[in-house]
Amino acid sequence: MKMSRIFTKTLRDAPKDETAKNGALLTRAGFIHKEMAGVYDYLPLGLIVIEKIKNVIREELNKLGCEEVLMSALQNPEPWEKTGRFDDQEVDIWFKTALSSGGELGLAPTHEEPMVNMLKSYISSYKDLPVYVYQFQTKFRNELRAKSGIMRGREFLMKDLYSFHTSEEDLDKFYAQVEQAYACIFKRLGLGDSTFETFASGGIFSKYSHEYQTFLPVGEDTVYYNPDKSLVFNKEVFTDEVLDEFKAVREDFRETNAAEVGNIFKLKFKYTEPLGLKFADENNESKTIYMGCYGIGVSRVMGVIAEKYADDKGLVWPEEVAPFKYHLVAIGESGTKVADDLYSEFADKILYDDRASARPGEKFADADLIGLPYRIVISDKTLTEDSVEVTDRRTGETRMVKTIDLKGLFL
Amino acid sequence: MKMSRIFTKTLRDAPKDETAKNGALLTRAGFIHKEMAGVYDYLPLGLIVIEKIKNVIREELNKLGCEEVLMSALQNPEPWEKTGRFDDQEVDIWFKTALSSGGELGLAPTHEEPMVNMLKSYISSYKDLPVYVYQFQTKFRNELRAKSGIMRGREFLMKDLYSFHTSEEDLDKFYAQVEQAYACIFKRLGLGDSTFETFASGGIFSKYSHEYQTFLPVGEDTVYYNPDKSLVFNKEVFTDEVLDEFKAVREDFRETNAAEVGNIFKLKFKYTEPLGLKFADENNESKTIYMGCYGIGVSRVMGVIAEKYADDKGLVWPEEVAPFKYHLVAIGESGTKVADDLYSEFADKILYDDRASARPGEKFADADLIGLPYRIVISDKTLTEDSVEVTDRRTGETRMVKTIDLKGLFL
Repeated sequence: MKMSRIFTKTLRDAPKDETAKNGALLTRAGFIHKEMAGVYDYLPLGLIVIEKIKNVIREELNKLGCEEVLMSALQNPEPWEKTGRFDDQEVDIWFKTALSSGGELGLAPTHEEPMVNMLKSYISSYKDLPVYVYQFQTKFRNELRAKSGIMRGREFLMKDLYSFHTSEEDLDKFYAQVEQAYACIFKRLGLGDSTFETFASGGIFSKYSHEYQTFLPVGEDTVYYNPDKSLVFNKEVFTDEVLDEFKAVREDFRETNAAEVGNIFKLKFKYTEPLGLKFADENNESKTIYMGCYGIGVSRVMGVIAEKYADDKGLVWPEEVAPFKYHLVAIGESGTKVADDLYSEFADKILYDDRASARPGEKFADADLIGLPYRIVISDKTLTEDSVEVTDRRTGETRMVKTIDLKGLFL
Repeated sequence: MKMSRIFTKTLRDAPKDETAKNGALLTRAGFIHKEMAGVYDYLPLGLIVIEKIKNVIREELNKLGCEEVLMSALQNPEPWEKTGRFDDQEVDIWFKTALSSGGELGLAPTHEEPMVNMLKSYISSYKDLPVYVYQFQTKFRNELRAKSGIMRGREFLMKDLYSFHTSEEDLDKFYAQVEQAYACIFKRLGLGDSTFETFASGGIFSKYSHEYQTFLPVGEDTVYYNPDKSLVFNKEVFTDEVLDEFKAVREDFRETNAAEVGNIFKLKFKYTEPLGLKFADENNESKTIYMGCYGIGVSRVMGVIAEKYADDKGLVWPEEVAPFKYHLVAIGESGTKVADDLYSEFADKILYDDRASARPGEKFADADLIGLPYRIVISDKTLTEDSVEVTDRRTGETRMVKTIDLKGLFL
């Protein structure tokens, strides 16, 4: 992508009401644009990051045999009324609207009810199970406050996976597979070292659910962890009773802030029972289907990555989610010629600052703000040594690479 | 994709209230699921079709230098109030909702206002222009009636492109490029022979806009065309005055139904003026920006393709949008062995009916209903002649292909 062509510009200032670091930096660097608190547009660079995060998740889920769909945002109240969740007293973050032909509708804050309801058309026998269905869908949540940039959206992108099983054992087995997949996903997203599976309250059918918490000073959750972080508890379950159960002592634990980037639940019959999702077993007996659900906040993950790695110069993207691997800066006539050649061959890996009007200092500052993993500078000066300068954005380390070896970086 | 793994099934019947052929067939074949009138879920096969349509459009627009973004569905009334379009008297298909913290919101039925408003952050000089920005976004329109399957959605997927220019000449030039791109897009989507650029009413700043109308008996629009279809008029502009202007006579024209799959508008100052999107020209004079907009109804295109090509056995997909090119049916033990091998090598091009429980007749009927371009049957019988049977879904023509040449079909 050529910077002379992108319609966005880096901005000196973020909107005044943008108090979150992720929101401010992503806005200044041209990744997002704020429509209102908790509602953002994704600009060309930001949309690439979103798509890269989605692809990492998609690849890992497809390995488990999960199938992708896309469900609607507009919600018929009917299935939600069967579980009691259309009631604003029960779920207090609904956006509601109405059909001009009559009848109230909701905007989906999550999709358990329509998913279970939809599957009644396709599942009838034990032979149809297990089923694993996921989507990347915009969720709408009418949050009273939304001051954390894209870490807490009123409109945000989520991956939600739902699994359906004939038995608790089969649910447990798949749940464990998802745990493995999540570990792999957060590792690939650059959050592996700081994201921990955390015990949280479980709801009606399970003692615990699991959250994936990324330790982060500005995280809105409070969690407690032991020295090797093998046990992490959300505040809500950090009780003497729970500690006893895990044979742990309170003194071993430390408190930290964290941001919830994912969660997984053994829902069992919570939704399948009231909505009547059943199967006929081997003996033709009708039984209720076991269900699990597994979320990852896609746009939130983008915000958490921005928040976690940014330094005083700007954003710092892990390689797998960076919109491009290389930020190419050309200075002078010969530099531009070599840079043009390189770009023409590897355009999909390069953000090329080809702006004739920008000074080198401006280009370097923008490269730091945008935060791609490596900056390549090709100038008349580096070329006198038949070299280009490659700088690691994270460490700031610079090395010279011979022009003859330059293409090797891209292969 | 293996049919034994897909959670959907072909259904004998569509929902009773599904009167449109596209809605009924797409439901029966497992591409979509109806949530309510005009609101559908996209199931695994359907989502692949949507993504293929998007990719065709994306490829052609990117060739023109267009940049992809993703704007929000939730709409702050402010920019819409400046153009008068937040008023339900003015735009009668709004879904409205409200923030729990106070304030009415809309669900975007289109995105001119937020797009123009957003660009005020990035465009200030003639050097920043032209700009071409597009997105694939869910639109919400509170239609009183929605009985045409996915051809008229209350929630539907649209590609909307907006262009911004310093002069009318530059707008005209880009508009002509988009006309070329649209011709190419509809050709690739399999609608080239039946889709015609049609004169329609132009609004405030232009005498005419152009619609892309696919001739179709169930289309909701009425258009008039001359013998070589070089002139097509929407009913609203088919007047004596307009005919005079084009030196055409009414007797030469025939009437037909058509479905609008795209439209392009020279909006000029319609939105940029009230929203104050200006640029400084070479003399540092402030001028209003010229604007064009260019839509394609992505989910509607899918419905139109389904509607147009379906026969009495089911759907018939053009190759470029088919979820897979080949529908592989294995019969018998040796047939299954050869089919397994083929699938393992070319999984991304094959829908493999590997169901052990389904009879051959059932598999053939499902292949016809789902409508992939080619059916390959590998049975113990075809293998006695070292062959497989390949049937063209559209023509019904069958030919035998030697197993030794089989892989050649996929390369």
